[in-house]
Amino acid sequence: MKIEKYQWKNIRATTLFGLALLFMACNPKTEAQVEKTAETVEAQKPKNFVIIFADDLGYGDLSSFGHPTIRTPHLDQMASEGQKWTNFYVGASVCTPSRAALMTGRLPVRNGMTSNVNRVLFPDSHNGLPQTEVTIAEQMKKAGYTTAAIGKWHLGHKEEYLPTSHGFDSYFGIPYSNDMDNVIPFRSPGGYFSFWKSEERKDINTFNVPLMRNTEIIERPADQHTITKRYTEEAIKFINENKEKPFFLYLAHNLPHVPLFASKEFEGNSPRGLYGDTVEEIDHGVGQVLDALKAAGLDKNTLVVFTSDNGPWLLMNQEGGSAGLLRNGKGSTWEGGMREPTIFWAPGSIKPAIITDIGSTMDLFTTFSNMVGVPIPSDRVMDGVDLDPVLFEEKESARKDMFYYRGDRLFAVRVGEYKAHFITQEPYEQEVTQHETPLLYNLNIDPSEKFDIAAEHPEIIQKIRAVVEQHNAKLVKGPDMLKDRG
Amino acid sequence: MKIEKYQWKNIRATTLFGLALLFMACNPKTEAQVEKTAETVEAQKPKNFVIIFADDLGYGDLSSFGHPTIRTPHLDQMASEGQKWTNFYVGASVCTPSRAALMTGRLPVRNGMTSNVNRVLFPDSHNGLPQTEVTIAEQMKKAGYTTAAIGKWHLGHKEEYLPTSHGFDSYFGIPYSNDMDNVIPFRSPGGYFSFWKSEERKDINTFNVPLMRNTEIIERPADQHTITKRYTEEAIKFINENKEKPFFLYLAHNLPHVPLFASKEFEGNSPRGLYGDTVEEIDHGVGQVLDALKAAGLDKNTLVVFTSDNGPWLLMNQEGGSAGLLRNGKGSTWEGGMREPTIFWAPGSIKPAIITDIGSTMDLFTTFSNMVGVPIPSDRVMDGVDLDPVLFEEKESARKDMFYYRGDRLFAVRVGEYKAHFITQEPYEQEVTQHETPLLYNLNIDPSEKFDIAAEHPEIIQKIRAVVEQHNAKLVKGPDMLKDRG
Repeated sequence: MKIEKYQWKNIRATTLFGLALLFMACNPKTEAQVEKTAETVEAQKPKNFVIIFADDLGYGDLSSFGHPTIRTPHLDQMASEGQKWTNFYVGASVCTPSRAALMTGRLPVRNGMTSNVNRVLFPDSHNGLPQTEVTIAEQMKKAGYTTAAIGKWHLGHKEEYLPTSHGFDSYFGIPYSNDMDNVIPFRSPGGYFSFWKSEERKDINTFNVPLMRNTEIIERPADQHTITKRYTEEAIKFINENKEKPFFLYLAHNLPHVPLFASKEFEGNSPRGLYGDTVEEIDHGVGQVLDALKAAGLDKNTLVVFTSDNGPWLLMNQEGGSAGLLRNGKGSTWEGGMREPTIFWAPGSIKPAIITDIGSTMDLFTTFSNMVGVPIPSDRVMDGVDLDPVLFEEKESARKDMFYYRGDRLFAVRVGEYKAHFITQEPYEQEVTQHETPLLYNLNIDPSEKFDIAAEHPEIIQKIRAVVEQHNAKLVKGPDMLKDRG
Repeated sequence: MKIEKYQWKNIRATTLFGLALLFMACNPKTEAQVEKTAETVEAQKPKNFVIIFADDLGYGDLSSFGHPTIRTPHLDQMASEGQKWTNFYVGASVCTPSRAALMTGRLPVRNGMTSNVNRVLFPDSHNGLPQTEVTIAEQMKKAGYTTAAIGKWHLGHKEEYLPTSHGFDSYFGIPYSNDMDNVIPFRSPGGYFSFWKSEERKDINTFNVPLMRNTEIIERPADQHTITKRYTEEAIKFINENKEKPFFLYLAHNLPHVPLFASKEFEGNSPRGLYGDTVEEIDHGVGQVLDALKAAGLDKNTLVVFTSDNGPWLLMNQEGGSAGLLRNGKGSTWEGGMREPTIFWAPGSIKPAIITDIGSTMDLFTTFSNMVGVPIPSDRVMDGVDLDPVLFEEKESARKDMFYYRGDRLFAVRVGEYKAHFITQEPYEQEVTQHETPLLYNLNIDPSEKFDIAAEHPEIIQKIRAVVEQHNAKLVKGPDMLKDRG
């Protein structure tokens, strides 16, 4: 039975493969295509855009994605009213490159926000997202939008790299991760790990992170107990102040990244412990943002996207999240590192559905740009596709592939339902395993990546290798903006 | 932060412990208590009862429990309209004892449906559920209900053990597992495992299982391609024939137990492959049953419970299911073996909610009996609690514990949020590990049972040991009804 089925599927995969290649060749859209798309944008589609981004939240950490004790009623309702995406990816398995991918619609290896190791920006980093990159906020500005970034940035904390230098009219937030401070020995992995076992970390003052308003530090250390609540309040204020004009809001929570902090109203509430408290507070905030949109009469006019920047930080044990049935977590190119619990919500224009097609945070750049009629940059390789047909027309996703980079090296590639791992590495280990014959998994049948089917499907591997060659032919690595520190 | 939190929780756990012991001492209810409960049963509570039982379906195999590619829209809607239970257990990690627990409201170790190993009944077994046991169907008969068992029974296939000898007016189904046949060498584990790798298993005729109507075999081999559909049709027929009188329907699907079979309408449809096809066909059938209840005007008058008999059969690799974020599967006393995706549905009387309290299939006996005003047997130890307050009054579950038996030995005990493993064993290995200090997990914080906190919490272990002592003091093992074969 099963073997017949697989044979049939392979035949289908074979015939569909040419189409997939065509799709890939067609993306990104040319400016001419964008004009055509812009003409067909219909009146009822949402005009405003809100992205709510969590930090280190795992695939399995929402109730609607299977967590038994984290209570997320607002996100669950958002999922049941909108589209719940179960195969939605970020561009990297750690913060900085993942955020760069969302902002630019490009793989971090192109935009300079990656290194020869799986690195992020630190408080002593010299650089940030290059000015040569075009951000999703800059795209929205071209269409006359008011833009705001609230929360974690992590694409450079010097003035020339901050949100206000990258298309955002305003910024309020902690410019990097909530565990980052010059006092703590971040530079050596040994020092870093031993720190997390120390008594020092229990003191909130240890995390001497700044809170910024635009380019100024307004509080240090930021009171992280109230940070989720304050981000939410800022978001609601922004929405209320911009009722009459189109807006783009990027609300990137610093939590549930460790160290975990929740406000008094939430601390000690969740059966899941402190990690659950922080997720439940974010969920509450999401509910408040949606309520604010409703109260302002904007709920039928706004697209809200919820997702996370990478998988759960498993290293943190009980303080880290869960990737559910997916393998591994943050820092890994297994699914748990890069597949995120994702919801698209726009009542009135998005019909409730569960989407098993592939999508990525890089597609938001392309999708939003097309929706507001701003051309996609044609002078560079873009990695996004337009999700519009999935969101509003119940059609298939144009995305048929995913490239899983770790640092500046391509570790794995998904084409259709198949994923090949060419290189594997444990998140916090140095040892790298090169697979001459890649490991091959059917992610639809085996989302937990448990059953390597490479031996049975050399033809699939061959096709994925062809996709890799085509990808590599277009690849120009950006300058490493992460390596200079101190 | 975290350590303080744990300390606080432990203090709470300590103070609540006495209450938990009181709760346990109060259960099962005496006949006098039942009378009082019966008086307060309100008019709007459902009068009819439907249990839909899946076979080997894992905790993570429904979309609403986090599966990315199995599409279960009807069960998801049922969950969103009713109560989704995330800490609901069966009485054993394999078929026969699990079903015995549901039927009798008692642990299999008491009712004879367990052995010194983790055994089930086979086609050459001599015995079945003893006549001395009182079944949930017999309870409903005492209240004048019409009762039907449709599907897998697995509590004895000889006439004196069949559903019609245990309180059901009628029976239609395969009396044991869908892989069971005298031809296949089931007796030796080696033969069994090598069989699953053979070509023989691909032939449907290999599985020469009988289909029975009451006590007669009407088809052999049963056409398993249509079995899910036919069970559903029988269920709908039963509902339509019993519109005017109260009924109890036990609909126990043979699938998604391997071998996997789906009807033409479903085979090849699910992105999850054949396993997904079978789950999606069951989901479709659930939708049809709920539709039939609506069409008959009984939806406001019927309580429908959906759950599974044990965790996923991981041994079957890609043909086995997923326990989601839970550890291990069928045959194991880790959570994946005994915690099931469970839904209670009774629109009008059950309000939509996610229930993180503990429940068990053994509680159905007690709950249903109390709802229809039939006394719980007072001449034996019962293991159920009345879930009525959770279902209809938004109150806490009276169940604060779970005893995880493997065969006739107690492997693990959950009290409140803590679970202690005294013995562990891989499902298909002989090696048994006795833990002098049990492994201890906080299931609310660590549902995946990854972080043993025994060293930090000797006081919790001490309390769980006291619960075990109390449990053992009341324990009278039933006669082993599973061992005689051939």
